[in-house]
Amino acid sequence: MAMGQGVEWAVHTCVLLAAVPPDRGMAAAKLAEFHDLPPAYLAKQLQGLAAAGIVRSVPGRRGGYRLAHPAAEVTVLDVVRAVEGSAPAFRCTEIRQQGPAAVGRAHYRQPCGIARVMWDAEAAWREVLAATTVQDLLVEVATTAAPVAIRRTTDFLQEAAR
Amino acid sequence: MAMGQGVEWAVHTCVLLAAVPPDRGMAAAKLAEFHDLPPAYLAKQLQGLAAAGIVRSVPGRRGGYRLAHPAAEVTVLDVVRAVEGSAPAFRCTEIRQQGPAAVGRAHYRQPCGIARVMWDAEAAWREVLAATTVQDLLVEVATTAAPVAIRRTTDFLQEAAR
Repeated sequence: MAMGQGVEWAVHTCVLLAAVPPDRGMAAAKLAEFHDLPPAYLAKQLQGLAAAGIVRSVPGRRGGYRLAHPAAEVTVLDVVRAVEGSAPAFRCTEIRQQGPAAVGRAHYRQPCGIARVMWDAEAAWREVLAATTVQDLLVEVATTAAPVAIRRTTDFLQEAAR
Repeated sequence: MAMGQGVEWAVHTCVLLAAVPPDRGMAAAKLAEFHDLPPAYLAKQLQGLAAAGIVRSVPGRRGGYRLAHPAAEVTVLDVVRAVEGSAPAFRCTEIRQQGPAAVGRAHYRQPCGIARVMWDAEAAWREVLAATTVQDLLVEVATTAAPVAIRRTTDFLQEAAR
């Protein structure tokens, strides 16, 4: 079971967007440049984030992408789902209803115990991802990153905003 | 993010094996027959389960596959990992160390906050899967399935053991 690399890119990009001044946007090319990512692939993730209502495009000379909502209202789960979809990882195909021991459909009203454990585990996973916001991640990086990295980020943001 | 269908098959098959009498095994073809699964594909899952030490082959006329350990000692997590591997779903490629704001490697001793949230979520997922054993699942199905389905399962097991 693996997540696509787009998840890492999308979350980092949302954290960067959380540092963009209000009413400004950042061009997709600049977002790719900041993490040295292939622009075409990041553009695909940005489209997914936009379709999910997490980022939006701001028109104009200082336009580009920005978060559609305050960073404190965007959870890691929101970003993961925008990129990976929200289908459960475990898909129950009801094989208990197949084979020589199977009985009529009416006897399987309760969900299969196996599917229930799998879905409980996924709920626990979602709960952790929903408990951290993009704002939390920005605060975390701003308080733990090397001062020189923060200065370079600030320089980049100011340069990109000119 | 999706699990392969082999997980569903492998867990159901382990629950069936938990009902096989001690010192008996069940042929791979019979295991496939019980859930009406394609034998060649189930054989691949059985090989994975055997490689992980969850099932073993018993030689002889009444041989076949059986659980290698008591069902109460085999967790759902064990089975999932045997089929899907134990690599984390989220792979951190350290993109924070790329691009114009990157600084020397020595400044990134702490794991990235994004990776940490992802891994915490996966730990929560694993914890739920590790809390349920194959024995729990057998008890659950034995106490909730339709009596006719249980009788047919018992008949199948007796027939397969002859």
